[in-house]
Amino acid sequence: MEHKSSTATATATATATATAAAVCRKAGEPLVVEDILVAPPMPHEVRIRIICTSLCHTDIKFWNMKDLPGIFPRILGHEAVGEVESVGSEVSEVKEGDIVIPSFMGECGECRDCSSEKSNLCSKLSFNLSHGMPRCGTSRFTDLNGQFLHHLLYVSSFSEYTVVDIAHIFKLDPYNIIPPDCACLLGCGVATGVGAAWRTAKVEKGSTVAIFGLGTIGLAVAEGARICGASRIIGVDVNPDKLTKAKEFGVTETVNSRALDGKSVSQVINEMTDGGADYCFECVGLSSLITEAFACCRKGWGKTILFGVEDTTSALSLKSADVIFQGKTLIGCLYGGLKPKSDIPTLVQWYIDKKLHLDLFITHEVKFEDINKAFNLLSEGECLRCVIWMSK
Amino acid sequence: MEHKSSTATATATATATATAAAVCRKAGEPLVVEDILVAPPMPHEVRIRIICTSLCHTDIKFWNMKDLPGIFPRILGHEAVGEVESVGSEVSEVKEGDIVIPSFMGECGECRDCSSEKSNLCSKLSFNLSHGMPRCGTSRFTDLNGQFLHHLLYVSSFSEYTVVDIAHIFKLDPYNIIPPDCACLLGCGVATGVGAAWRTAKVEKGSTVAIFGLGTIGLAVAEGARICGASRIIGVDVNPDKLTKAKEFGVTETVNSRALDGKSVSQVINEMTDGGADYCFECVGLSSLITEAFACCRKGWGKTILFGVEDTTSALSLKSADVIFQGKTLIGCLYGGLKPKSDIPTLVQWYIDKKLHLDLFITHEVKFEDINKAFNLLSEGECLRCVIWMSK
Repeated sequence: MEHKSSTATATATATATATAAAVCRKAGEPLVVEDILVAPPMPHEVRIRIICTSLCHTDIKFWNMKDLPGIFPRILGHEAVGEVESVGSEVSEVKEGDIVIPSFMGECGECRDCSSEKSNLCSKLSFNLSHGMPRCGTSRFTDLNGQFLHHLLYVSSFSEYTVVDIAHIFKLDPYNIIPPDCACLLGCGVATGVGAAWRTAKVEKGSTVAIFGLGTIGLAVAEGARICGASRIIGVDVNPDKLTKAKEFGVTETVNSRALDGKSVSQVINEMTDGGADYCFECVGLSSLITEAFACCRKGWGKTILFGVEDTTSALSLKSADVIFQGKTLIGCLYGGLKPKSDIPTLVQWYIDKKLHLDLFITHEVKFEDINKAFNLLSEGECLRCVIWMSK
Repeated sequence: MEHKSSTATATATATATATAAAVCRKAGEPLVVEDILVAPPMPHEVRIRIICTSLCHTDIKFWNMKDLPGIFPRILGHEAVGEVESVGSEVSEVKEGDIVIPSFMGECGECRDCSSEKSNLCSKLSFNLSHGMPRCGTSRFTDLNGQFLHHLLYVSSFSEYTVVDIAHIFKLDPYNIIPPDCACLLGCGVATGVGAAWRTAKVEKGSTVAIFGLGTIGLAVAEGARICGASRIIGVDVNPDKLTKAKEFGVTETVNSRALDGKSVSQVINEMTDGGADYCFECVGLSSLITEAFACCRKGWGKTILFGVEDTTSALSLKSADVIFQGKTLIGCLYGGLKPKSDIPTLVQWYIDKKLHLDLFITHEVKFEDINKAFNLLSEGECLRCVIWMSK
């Protein structure tokens, strides 16, 4: 690779590693692959050589974000798989050469949340939109002019080397059971959708599911719902191509929300299901779509699951009467309710057992130097996941 | 009683029974106890001689409601116990002389909801704000001028006789295990609160509960939470007398939301509980209080339960980010998620076992002819439940 620099000589010594990274210096501007310095891991930290990484809509969201939590210069990327290059003190869980998936979610394994079956929101390393390392908020990246580069979601995988807290790392073991391009998908989007069906909604055998938005997360919900035994999986989107594609992921029926002859989506789904779906998943994050999804879930026991991030600051458009008189439930989840260390092995096993079709999500691949192409592809909507190979 | 009329001669014949009823002829005006005619029960219906009835805030709400679903003239009242006087055809579940509790909730026992453990919203006789009988929408009441009088919530217990659908009746058996003044409380408010803790929230042993609003429903939540084994039950109200009284119902700690030294309720409760309560119950129905309750429930697994009816038409003031990033749940319920026929026996048993202190809720008693006093007492806030005795 053109930008391959001194990384070949990196060792597990306490020195900064010079490496190539795709730096985002201004909102919405193309990333620039340049040499940067990656500091050695501090206590509880691991320096990782990224093998491949995939682009998620959240990267694009932060790429375009002019105001906080948008901040620049920054190294984006948070779906990846890599090889441990060196470890800081207090790290015994992984060693040099281990293959790991970094996660934006932490799991300390000790706090009240990590000890509970009901929560995946680690209290010790709690999720927030910080732009530094989880324990201290500082950066491990500097450019060659000595300027700090900000982290993204505790991962920053658009760099040949990155530093990640041990609480944010899941070790793949044994090494070669899952190809790297499939493994990296488990870092965010696909795992989120599968987890939302499995862990958050607890979809049951024979149930009816409606999915709003058939991007990667929505299709991953379909995979998860199918694995959990849902008998009807209704996919809703405005894009006919996505509706067709969705059948490969287990969607059994589709609704084009722009071709309903004057009916609303909720009218159509309530008719199709004789009163509503058992579980509705809103995968876009728009207030108006949340209202529709909630209206589609069955009275008495229907659950609407939220995880969209398009527009999280807008108010929900729901009345308390909609909730009370229908006995419905609204649930939010981050990372689909999954704990990275505890739950990802199950998803890996589902892949090995050919239940979870990770490979179906990989629609494009590019070299690291072509990373901006991935941004174009995902922005244009033709792409589910574009895998970016650091070297090939 | 002054208004006792020809009811003493009522028999199970297919004739209208002349009886005394408290008729509400105009929003907010005192009820007038007058003789009316109560038609005989149609198929699936039961005519009941009311023994006693209690006043609920929902009666006051409908009493004051100038526009639909407010409608007049009407016979209010929906918490009661009575004796079966006659039954229509197709009724085999009860017979003349049985003691029954009518319920605003139906349970046909056959539909998909009644067959499910997860729902209490009968589909065959679904809850709505109709002012007639559930199967046909017509009235069984006429005044002596021949004008129809509207029903309330399928019960209309402010009448010596009323007609109720068999799906809306729970039979107390044996007769005398529970005094009538305690029994009538199970028709709405107290059962709703207890049910919300037991059936909807599924409060677990050792959990922490926060209750917003310490009227009858809030105190009933406290009873239910205590019975389910909650170890901390935090009561929130603006009225110091209510906070003191709440201790009798199992509330372990209290928060006066008007005396917080500039802090918000959620700040105080989050500090008290090291991150929030496991279950928050909003018992008033105000959008602003729902927001506070939601902010008080613990990230990761906290559930906020809604059943207030003060202001159900106003929009919830919640952002999707509040739901997603905290992994929280919002649940609505009607009648606390209870099925009248299936679940009330458990509440009766809890009363017999001295776990559920129904008698504590009875703060006042009046004769039927003094029914307007009950409205004054409940409106003034000094009263939990005022039992109205039809004859004594």
